[in-house]
Order: sequence, then C-alpha cells, then structure tokens
Amino acid sequence: MSAKKIPHRLYLTEDQMPRQWYNLRADMPEQPDPLLNPGTLRPLAVEELYPIFCEALARQEMDGSKRYYDIPEEVQEVYKMYRPSPLIRAFNLEKALGTPAKIYYKFEGNNTSGSHKLNSAVAQAYYAKAQGITRLTTETGAGQWGTALSEACSYFGIDLDVFMVKCSYEQKPFRKAVMGVFDANVTPSPSPTTEVGRKILAENPGTTGSLGCAISEAVESAVTAGNSRYVLGSVLNQVLLHQSIIGLESKAAMEELGEYPDVVVGCAGGGSNLGGLIAPFMQDKLTGKHDPRIVAVEPASCPSLTRGKYAYDFCDTGKVTPMARMYTLGSGFIPSANHAGGLRYHGMSPILSKLYHDKFMEAVSYRQTEVFEAAVLFAKLETILPAPESAHAIKGAIDEAMKCRESGEEKTILFGLTGTGYFDMTAYEAYLSGTMSDHVPTDEELQKGFDTLPDIPQNKGI
Amino acid sequence: MSAKKIPHRLYLTEDQMPRQWYNLRADMPEQPDPLLNPGTLRPLAVEELYPIFCEALARQEMDGSKRYYDIPEEVQEVYKMYRPSPLIRAFNLEKALGTPAKIYYKFEGNNTSGSHKLNSAVAQAYYAKAQGITRLTTETGAGQWGTALSEACSYFGIDLDVFMVKCSYEQKPFRKAVMGVFDANVTPSPSPTTEVGRKILAENPGTTGSLGCAISEAVESAVTAGNSRYVLGSVLNQVLLHQSIIGLESKAAMEELGEYPDVVVGCAGGGSNLGGLIAPFMQDKLTGKHDPRIVAVEPASCPSLTRGKYAYDFCDTGKVTPMARMYTLGSGFIPSANHAGGLRYHGMSPILSKLYHDKFMEAVSYRQTEVFEAAVLFAKLETILPAPESAHAIKGAIDEAMKCRESGEEKTILFGLTGTGYFDMTAYEAYLSGTMSDHVPTDEELQKGFDTLPDIPQNKGI
Repeated sequence: MSAKKIPHRLYLTEDQMPRQWYNLRADMPEQPDPLLNPGTLRPLAVEELYPIFCEALARQEMDGSKRYYDIPEEVQEVYKMYRPSPLIRAFNLEKALGTPAKIYYKFEGNNTSGSHKLNSAVAQAYYAKAQGITRLTTETGAGQWGTALSEACSYFGIDLDVFMVKCSYEQKPFRKAVMGVFDANVTPSPSPTTEVGRKILAENPGTTGSLGCAISEAVESAVTAGNSRYVLGSVLNQVLLHQSIIGLESKAAMEELGEYPDVVVGCAGGGSNLGGLIAPFMQDKLTGKHDPRIVAVEPASCPSLTRGKYAYDFCDTGKVTPMARMYTLGSGFIPSANHAGGLRYHGMSPILSKLYHDKFMEAVSYRQTEVFEAAVLFAKLETILPAPESAHAIKGAIDEAMKCRESGEEKTILFGLTGTGYFDMTAYEAYLSGTMSDHVPTDEELQKGFDTLPDIPQNKGI
Repeated sequence: MSAKKIPHRLYLTEDQMPRQWYNLRADMPEQPDPLLNPGTLRPLAVEELYPIFCEALARQEMDGSKRYYDIPEEVQEVYKMYRPSPLIRAFNLEKALGTPAKIYYKFEGNNTSGSHKLNSAVAQAYYAKAQGITRLTTETGAGQWGTALSEACSYFGIDLDVFMVKCSYEQKPFRKAVMGVFDANVTPSPSPTTEVGRKILAENPGTTGSLGCAISEAVESAVTAGNSRYVLGSVLNQVLLHQSIIGLESKAAMEELGEYPDVVVGCAGGGSNLGGLIAPFMQDKLTGKHDPRIVAVEPASCPSLTRGKYAYDFCDTGKVTPMARMYTLGSGFIPSANHAGGLRYHGMSPILSKLYHDKFMEAVSYRQTEVFEAAVLFAKLETILPAPESAHAIKGAIDEAMKCRESGEEKTILFGLTGTGYFDMTAYEAYLSGTMSDHVPTDEELQKGFDTLPDIPQNKGI
C-alpha cells in the first residue's frame, strides 16, 4: 500500500506539463495501412495532402517513425491557459458502487469548448497561422470540436467556417451562439452551399445529416477557395498526436500518486480522446513495460469497432477524401436521428483500428439509456455533468468496477472524462422524461452501410 | 520584483485548503444594524428565525463576534470534490489591454452548478441534514443558486423545491433540466402555488417576476409545510460566511506567489460572491494591516449601491421576511425584463451595505451592453465564457487596468470570476445580434420602488 496521501484532485504544476507530444505509431509493431488516393488506389504521397491540410499537419499525418514532437512554444502558451487538466479520484462513485477498485478520471471539460477537442484545435490553428493560411473549414457533430476550433481560430486570428451536422444544429441551439462569440460562421449540414451538400440533399431530402456529410462539405469548401485549408477534430493520426497530451499528463499525475492503471477506458467516436488518453499506456504495453487492458466504449447505435468491418473506406459520405483502412460501418451509414449521445461517426481512427485488429485493445458498446443512467449517477456523485460522449466511458468504468466488486480485485481504473454536457440538456430531458429511444441498428441496416464500402481490390474478402 | 515564476494558474494543494470560514463581522468597527421583526419592529431574536432557517444557520446569521467557524468535515469532503478553485493570471487580457497592471482572477465556475454558489449550498444542505430536515425550498434568479442547491440536496438526500424567477425560467430553458438531473422540482415564480404568488399575480398579471417575489413564495412554501426550511443563496450573513472560502483561498494563493492585491473587484447582486471574495482583504483593511481598494460592480439597471437608499426593507416582495437595513431600491422594484445580466436583486447584503456606508468599499455600475462587450473580449482572450454576472467584475477589472495604463502604475488587480455563461446564450445572442437593450431606470422608476419602503420610524429621514 502506498504511504502517499491520495488527494481528490491532482493538478500537475506548469513545470510538470509535457513539452512534447507522443506519436504512438513509432512503437507499433505494424503500421496502420497507408491512406489511398481514391483515383489511383495507390498509397498517398504527403504532397497530395497539401491542398487539403497545412503542410506541417500533412507531414504529421504521414509520419509513423518520429516518436516525439516538440509542442511549439505558442501552443504551449495556450495549453497553459486551461491545462494541466485535473486527474480526479472518484471516491464517491467508488463508495456508491461498493467496489474495491480505485477509479481515476482525467477531466478535460474545464475550458469553454467544454472538451478535450481544444488540444488539437489549438495545434491545428497554430500550424495554419504559421503557414499563412487565413481561413479554415471544418465539420462538427455534437459541437464540441466546432467550439474548440472557434476558440483557437479566434485566438490566432483565422476565419472559420463550420459545417454542423443538422440534427445537432437543431438539438443544440446554443452551440451556434457559443461559436458566434468566437466569430465562427456555422452552417447546418447538409447544406445547399456546396456541390456535395446539394447532391446529398437531392438524394435524401429529409436527412438529418452525419459527420461524414459534414466532412465532405467542409473539404469541398476548403479546396475550392483561396488560402483555405480543412481541419478535422478526430480520426486523423495528427489529431491523436496532439491529444497525446491527455495521456502524458494522466501518466505523469498517476506516477506522482504512485499509481498505474490496470484498465484504461475511453469513449470512442472517431478516436481523438481514446487515442490521446491511451497513448503512453499503449506504449508501455507495446514495449512490454506494463500490460494494462485498454477498453474502447462506443454507442450500440453506431458500433464501428464492435460490429463494423476492417476495410478501406472514405472518411466522408460524399467520397471526396482519401481512403483509410479502418473499422467502419460504411461511409453511407447514417446513425438514428434519435441517437443523442454523440460518437456518431461511421469510421474509427486508423491507428486505433489497427491496434484493435491486432488485439492490443478491447471494445464494448452500450445503449443510449444505460449511458445516460450512468451520466446522471455520476453527476450526482461527482459534481460534474458529463457530456453524453464522456458518459460512455463512465458506463464502461462502472462496469469494470462492478466486475472488481464481484471478484474482490482492487484494480486501478483510469477513464477519460472528455467533457461537460451543458449543451446536451435536450437529451438529458428526453432521458429523464422516459422518452429517449434505444435504437440499435439491425443487421439489415448495417448491411446497407456496408454496401457503400468501396468496391476495390484492397477490400476483397472483407 | 519577485524572483518567483508566476504560473498561469495556481491551484492550492488539498492540504493548503482553508479549514475554517471567516466571519467578517468580527472585525467590523460597527456591526450591521440588526434584523427587525416586522410585527414588533424590535430586533429579532435568534429563536424567531428557527421556523425559517435551520438552527445552526440561524445562529450563524445572528453571530457577529465569532471570528472563525470550523468547516464541518462532511462539508470539507464535498469542497474537495471541486475545490480549491484556481487563481488565474490573465496574461492575455493584460497584453491586449496594454496595461502595466497585473490582473488575477479567482475562477469559481469549475463545477456543474457553474458558479461559486455551491460553496454555501453545500453548507446549508449539510446543516439541514444534520438537523433532520427532509425538505428545503429556495428561489433562484439566473439559475446558478438553484442548480447549486439541487446538487447539494441530491448529495445529502434532501427534497428540494425551487421557485425560479419567471423571466429566467423562460430565457434559460435548460436550467430546469439541469436541476431535474438532481431531482429538484422547479416552479416559475410568481406562481399560483402559494398565497403570496397568487396575490402578486392578481396585482400584476404580466409580471416577469423578481428575486423578491420568488423569495416570498419559497419562504411561504417552507413555513407552511412540515419538516421544511427555507434557504437563500445570497444577501444573508451566513452565506457570506460560507463564501469566505473564496477570499481565503485567493489570499493564500496570492501569498504563494508573493502577491497582494491593490484592488479587489467583484460583481454584486445580493453580495454572496463579493462578500466572500473580499472577506480576508477587508479584514486586513479593517485591522490596518493592508489598505486595498474594494470595488463592487453592479448593473446600471438594478443599482442598489450606487442609486439605492440605506434603509430598512423587506428582503422579499411579498413582505413575509424580517426587515434588514441595507442599500435597497425597495422590495417593490422590479428590474427591466430585458435585463439579462443577472444581479437583479433589489437589496444588498447588510454586511456589505454597512461597509459601503462606512466608506470601506466603493461601487460602480455598468450598462448591459458594455458588460457583454467585456465578456466577449474576455472569452476570446482567456478561454472561459463568463456568466453575465461575472462579466460585471471583468468590466470593472478592465477599467481599473486601463486606469493603470494611463497612470503607468503596476497595480495588482484581483477580481472574482464567479461562473460560466453556458446557460446565458440567449443573452449572448441578443448582444451579438445588436438587439440587447440598455435600459437604465429613470428617477421616476426608482421612486416607485422607494415608495414601497416600509414606513417605519427607523426609516425616518432616509
């Protein structure tokens, strides 16, 4: 037993903050499969990404070998405004569950974007500024990424156009206002402002949108305008690189406490938080230093890891992006409009997909109502109202802790609490009033998505 | 110049957290005037408060002599879940203003209630529980206090009825949902559920409510039911006592940095934050140890300190409470419904009123749009979206910093950032779209409020 007194919340000091991001690919026994040019079906050269992404970010995207990247001074300065984020011991939750397990969580919601998304937004806006880019475009689902990027662009003085998934735009009327505080333009997607948006609307006029659609529109809007680039808040390798700050801080804080997690649990939509949270722990696992279990938690309504296929797919619905090999439901998959719990993306980070495929990581899925049940329990016990996305990780951590209650094991559980739920009250209201639906796609519904997978040699036999 | 490196954010450790609250009255050269029984016009005995307040809280309310109160262990345990709150150096704001001043702020918004209100809510719910009370009633204006008390009551297992000022209820649809997560019942006020509510509605059917109305209803609802008590989130001496944790932590954190404020700035509605923030600095001032300036900032639309009268008045519109001597606009004053910036209470903490009357404190007022202008500037520079209430203090601090730019003085400014604005997006939208009104009461409108002041001997010549 450690003699160290365990506080409720541990903040690293500024001096203890990581000054480098960690690139998980450098320690993977096998690299994720390369991005493909959809025209030639050949691996993409970094230069082919330059019209879409800033050059520094394109290079980060393609670089599997450099283990550590210095965090630019200017980015560190912004990080210091809201980081380090606290590592919190969930004493009350442990007590309420009657578990011998120790539950820690890394809370990323203490900034105006309300989530971890700011970590990559700041980095991407910085590199855009450094390259002289004057306008960025992006998509947002639940609105956290859009808010984070609005903040970052406002800080660095860059114009921003956000395509927001239509059902979120309607469910979260105030998200637009927050982005407006930071001078961003917000358009519900699909929209008539882009060619791909008009095409999607023509084919499916009643669509409530998806991240895949919004990505198509944002990419088109960037590549057809001058001095603009597109940025993405998840899925990409560069995003996982920036988000490694979460895991690095978590590991340093746990070391301060003399702790190391037996299980690391994170929610997974496109993988931005999960990939960042687990990065240094996965490093330990891959290098044989430790052997923590790593658990991805996803919604049963959009189950890319647990029910998807490991295949080459487009990152967007309009098929304007390169193809990535990942766990996917097919770029044509659109989750139920009733699903309010975020994490609605059809695919999954190629890095995480590869690690899952190679069995370094587990995955579970939960239905919407059980996730909100966990969220409400957590809010009452821990004084934080979680975002529905984050609540998936809470549910996963609770289940791990309950297993410990049965087995009597005193495991140490770490989960990522990615953000706050202040803009998700419509969903909370639905849960509290008992009107929340629990739709899980049927095999037939999934098949419709799989039917949209690219028919290319690389996907034969999948 | 201090050799110490100044971090962006300083968190005290758990061990450094105050274990006692500080009772500012113990060091005041003259005590605030006593509460009066409105029937007898005689000073109230503590026992007369027992039907309204829990006994321990009633005793705190009446005790001007005990300097320090031990914070109960159970309350400390909850404080540790969200405290210490950070002391933050506003480096970006300083730079943008081009001021030689150093600007620090104490940020109280990092909990689900989104504000400092939780500090007193936890204490009041704890004492209720300790006395075996099973139900509490309260009012809420902007919704922060109601949310905080919902959290605290849920934690201690106490039923809660919240009367929410009608215009806030309508402007902030999701506040009710957050309170619902914590099982509170929320009623828009004035309501037909109480006698006083029915009376107010009959006299003024179109009223958008006021804190004064909501207090009347909550008090009636408590005293006419079994095993219920009423609790209030501001104005009262007991609330200032609990909120002293803000100032005590601020002072300890500044000492860590080798700093002491030349000016302390806080927003003032009923005085809960301001009284707590300034407590130990005012102690230094009253005891001659230091001489900081203390500045209260209030809205020009509800200017109790800057345009009110120092008189005995009811704390509520329905005139069911004891009378307190304070700066007041009259319990019949109802601020403009277009005023979205919070701080809508007609009176002011008797302690702060006395200190202001005795010239230990200054006060300024600002119009709504200039406050929101400061809020948007701050959000962009400091990554925190402030509550409109808190933005009054931001505006006050900015003006102090601008004076330093003119004079070249390197003053140290401390202000209280009481909370976040996630539930105030309707107001932000109004500001951003240019439709926000800037109504300031005319002398005639003020006179209507003054006409409701009690016509008692104690108010002669006021």
